[in-house]
Amino acid sequence: MTDAKKGTPKDTHYAKLRRAHRDRTAGSAPPRRQRPAAAATAPGDGLVRLYGLHTVAAALQNSRRRIHHMLVTRNALERLGIAELSALSFPAELVEPRDIDKVTGSDAVHQGVVIEAEPLAAKRLDALGDTRLVVVLDQVTDPHNVGAILRSAVAFGAGALITTARHSPAESGVLAKSASGALEHINHIEVRNLAAALDELHGAGFQTVGLDSEGPEELEHSFSGDRLALVLGAEGKGLRQKTRETVNVLARLDMPGAIRSLNVSNAAAIALYAARRALAAR
Amino acid sequence: MTDAKKGTPKDTHYAKLRRAHRDRTAGSAPPRRQRPAAAATAPGDGLVRLYGLHTVAAALQNSRRRIHHMLVTRNALERLGIAELSALSFPAELVEPRDIDKVTGSDAVHQGVVIEAEPLAAKRLDALGDTRLVVVLDQVTDPHNVGAILRSAVAFGAGALITTARHSPAESGVLAKSASGALEHINHIEVRNLAAALDELHGAGFQTVGLDSEGPEELEHSFSGDRLALVLGAEGKGLRQKTRETVNVLARLDMPGAIRSLNVSNAAAIALYAARRALAAR
Repeated sequence: MTDAKKGTPKDTHYAKLRRAHRDRTAGSAPPRRQRPAAAATAPGDGLVRLYGLHTVAAALQNSRRRIHHMLVTRNALERLGIAELSALSFPAELVEPRDIDKVTGSDAVHQGVVIEAEPLAAKRLDALGDTRLVVVLDQVTDPHNVGAILRSAVAFGAGALITTARHSPAESGVLAKSASGALEHINHIEVRNLAAALDELHGAGFQTVGLDSEGPEELEHSFSGDRLALVLGAEGKGLRQKTRETVNVLARLDMPGAIRSLNVSNAAAIALYAARRALAAR
Repeated sequence: MTDAKKGTPKDTHYAKLRRAHRDRTAGSAPPRRQRPAAAATAPGDGLVRLYGLHTVAAALQNSRRRIHHMLVTRNALERLGIAELSALSFPAELVEPRDIDKVTGSDAVHQGVVIEAEPLAAKRLDALGDTRLVVVLDQVTDPHNVGAILRSAVAFGAGALITTARHSPAESGVLAKSASGALEHINHIEVRNLAAALDELHGAGFQTVGLDSEGPEELEHSFSGDRLALVLGAEGKGLRQKTRETVNVLARLDMPGAIRSLNVSNAAAIALYAARRALAAR
């Protein structure tokens, strides 16, 4: 979600493997070396590739999103409700699904459309506005998880996702697809120092609630603010010590079963659901 | 989660690609054709490969799990709390991490250990016992999602995961890794006819609650039974018509935001959390 400055979003790794596999099984020319092949199909400089109907439809409706190019099948064009390519404000080509496979890799569920676009610029903390609910991620790096968290955050009306500038995934096709359009609907705020950002949130009237399996309070009884910031760490590692010391409260999710931790996006979904209920009750 | 009768669990697909990639970039002999290469490194007949510390530790503690073979690094052996290989009841070899890469593919987060084991036999509906909470999946096929749902189901004390024999993912390394050990802690029940199974659940005193974005009742107000069965369909498709007609109630999750659907494992986590609260309040 930071600018993909090097033009190497993480999802191209599998795409490379898939291309290598297809080149090989098709009995075509001898396989090319890895790096030149990757360079040949990476998106343009600093751009990100977004695919899938939900993801692209949301990008088309986002006035902040600058799209450079689109490949689309006739069928996907219809499903996107676009009457003519000429109505678009950027170059677009009608292609066959296999042409998109070549760009995204054939295992990407592209549903007949891929765009190359500029990543959305991350905002600063003063862009928060009057939202009552935000999600803060402390070094969660998996793009599938961050994408799913974005989707849940938007579904439950959170106004921002706050991440650290370092140790957060760059905007990518995988992240965007997991977010299913949510990337276009939420402020992404990047901060250098998470503890300082939490203190700023306190100053703005937020209660910061860190999820921690050993937390002294049960989550649903931990909410007391009119504005809530849910703070989640990476699976396994959890919240960093400084983060644990800075949040207003550490809260746990009670789980009676033999396993006492959840996938981080599942924990985020439950926390958002519970926080939304707590805010509605005020 | 069904018996992998053909010895071709789904996670071998990427492994094949990775092997093809490695063969090619290593500048070794010309790449082999796809099928022989897959056969050479697929697990033994009808076996499944499980990797990762949590996943393997849980398998070791499960008396129902029959393990045929283990590859383990010295470090992982220590982290698993195993003093000596000779203490194990199956053959095991001390290896280097790269030896495990060769088996699982280098992108699998194997953490230094992989086992080959027999898949757990799915049970029949009469194995339910006296559990008060079960999860029913109506043709959810993605192994990452089913694995994450298993993990949440175990965390919230659900007694069984009920799936259809067809259109459900086979037990695999990917599913097991996403489940993070949960596979060993829950009854997996396979049924041929989901509507008939729901009727059996009704006979056993379960209220069946189907999640549906257009459901007439809000989820947390939909629970009325002393035993609850949460029924979830695949993303996009949702519940099949017959399933919708058979459940006691169709319930929705209210989402105030611009996106009105969640990743299925996130929806399952919230439903489990809400159901557990409803049962505790009785």
